[in-house]
Amino acid sequence: MAETLTIHEVGPRDGLQNESALVSTEDKAEFVSRLVEAGCTQVEVSSFVRPRWVPQLADAEDLIRLLPRGTDCTFWALVPNRRGMDRALESGIGAVATFMSTSETHNEKNVNRTLRESLSALREVIATAKAEGLLVRAYLSTVFGCPFEGEVDPAQVADLAGDLVAAGADHISLGDTTGMGDPSGVEKVLSTLVDAGLPLDSLAMHMHDTRGTALANVLTGLRFGVRRFDASVAGLGGCPYAPGASGNLATEDLVHMLHAMGHDTGIDLDSLSDTGAFMARTLGKELPGRYHRYHLAQRARAERERSVG
Amino acid sequence: MAETLTIHEVGPRDGLQNESALVSTEDKAEFVSRLVEAGCTQVEVSSFVRPRWVPQLADAEDLIRLLPRGTDCTFWALVPNRRGMDRALESGIGAVATFMSTSETHNEKNVNRTLRESLSALREVIATAKAEGLLVRAYLSTVFGCPFEGEVDPAQVADLAGDLVAAGADHISLGDTTGMGDPSGVEKVLSTLVDAGLPLDSLAMHMHDTRGTALANVLTGLRFGVRRFDASVAGLGGCPYAPGASGNLATEDLVHMLHAMGHDTGIDLDSLSDTGAFMARTLGKELPGRYHRYHLAQRARAERERSVG
Repeated sequence: MAETLTIHEVGPRDGLQNESALVSTEDKAEFVSRLVEAGCTQVEVSSFVRPRWVPQLADAEDLIRLLPRGTDCTFWALVPNRRGMDRALESGIGAVATFMSTSETHNEKNVNRTLRESLSALREVIATAKAEGLLVRAYLSTVFGCPFEGEVDPAQVADLAGDLVAAGADHISLGDTTGMGDPSGVEKVLSTLVDAGLPLDSLAMHMHDTRGTALANVLTGLRFGVRRFDASVAGLGGCPYAPGASGNLATEDLVHMLHAMGHDTGIDLDSLSDTGAFMARTLGKELPGRYHRYHLAQRARAERERSVG
Repeated sequence: MAETLTIHEVGPRDGLQNESALVSTEDKAEFVSRLVEAGCTQVEVSSFVRPRWVPQLADAEDLIRLLPRGTDCTFWALVPNRRGMDRALESGIGAVATFMSTSETHNEKNVNRTLRESLSALREVIATAKAEGLLVRAYLSTVFGCPFEGEVDPAQVADLAGDLVAAGADHISLGDTTGMGDPSGVEKVLSTLVDAGLPLDSLAMHMHDTRGTALANVLTGLRFGVRRFDASVAGLGGCPYAPGASGNLATEDLVHMLHAMGHDTGIDLDSLSDTGAFMARTLGKELPGRYHRYHLAQRARAERERSVG
């Protein structure tokens, strides 16, 4: 039953874009290097949104120039539109992620477009990316619940996911944007997608831990056959809709559980945890990941014992 | 598929015994009253261990005198031995919990006894409790992993659980004392217990969230047929083996997930969450529960909007 699973690390992009502190380009480069050394093979490093919107990630081009070369890691950047896609192509990055919501209200509030308009724009970005030989993923937001509309119709998710796969997207990342998902809802969405013919290996799950359900939802997806999961080291990022609450699932929590269950991720949990500790120091704040905090507690105890002994 | 599930709230006992702050008897009584008002039907309120060992719970008798009367709630107290059992009987409490480990090393470090000696002492306590018409549960510790011995043989867990049920224990609470459990390990233990003939309705799961796996483990137990789960409001208590890390599963996280899945607990989540907020204020510290933090963030936002509007 042991499986080889793929972890898509979103800390440098999705994590840092939701942290108020600005991190230097050099610290970001060290962050990414540490992730690669820990065995991460998929790292979303930055975003080509307008710097005015997300000043935390304004240095995308500079960071990409500093990324480690000659590794097995695929580096991803977020592209919101054609202009972002142009910047991505110039930067030389090999993989891009685009995004839209599955809820009209959330999409309108987030990007001021209808779902139909977003889908059309994404099709164009995906076509350009594929024509240039890039890997491309599409994030679908609010898949497991929308803070404005409540439950999102799984059939609508299946339609949008199917359209994006048909447009050429290599992966669809199903986002639990505000952590409303629960195992029953995850089952409902995944069974609808499978019944609609979506290939399981095109799917990723991007769960948020706002209400503590992220790993239970991952477990449900795992049993369904999903093999690709997004996470953010130490839970970097928080919840944009509830400041102070948790957001992204912490990568250490995910990797620990998967390894304990006998699965393989290729990631060294200790080294990953040290990377989380590095980011907590760099940001000078407490980060919410459970295993992250356990790791810090264990390190502190070991240091006390060393200084006594 | 909707089930009626029983939540055994351990915050006032297991939570507070691991908090360094001393809480006044009046605040504890208010804590328990709020839990009862929120719909909790099983609350473990204190412990009859020696006050010198656990000064946080030295006021067990005084607290019990202040508990609300005429409710549907069963109040529990921990009894470590015959002397504690005598105090419990004098106090008039209706339900008692006793405990031992499933790992020789952990049991020796915790109570300085062999497993055989503990089992013999528990049999006596259970017999006394049943003769006096009390409900009785037995906690088994380190069921899903021991910090000293690693994996605990599920057959040994099954033997001890079987002996305690035979001795008259109404419930066996399977404790993941240091949060080492994962869904595969939970399956292994539960299938061993079921194969050994342990009735599922005698079992409770007491999961810790030290590494973030508590709800995934609960989900696994739920699918196995377990219908009774222990938790501590807001995650009160922390991990005694890793100060700073999470310990007890937070009741709000548990109740939220169960309700989202369509199950019934009889508990009002908002009222429960307000109780968690009350305890964070009373202790003057941040508590780790995810839903608890989300609830506080939502309340803070509502207050900001009220003060602006």
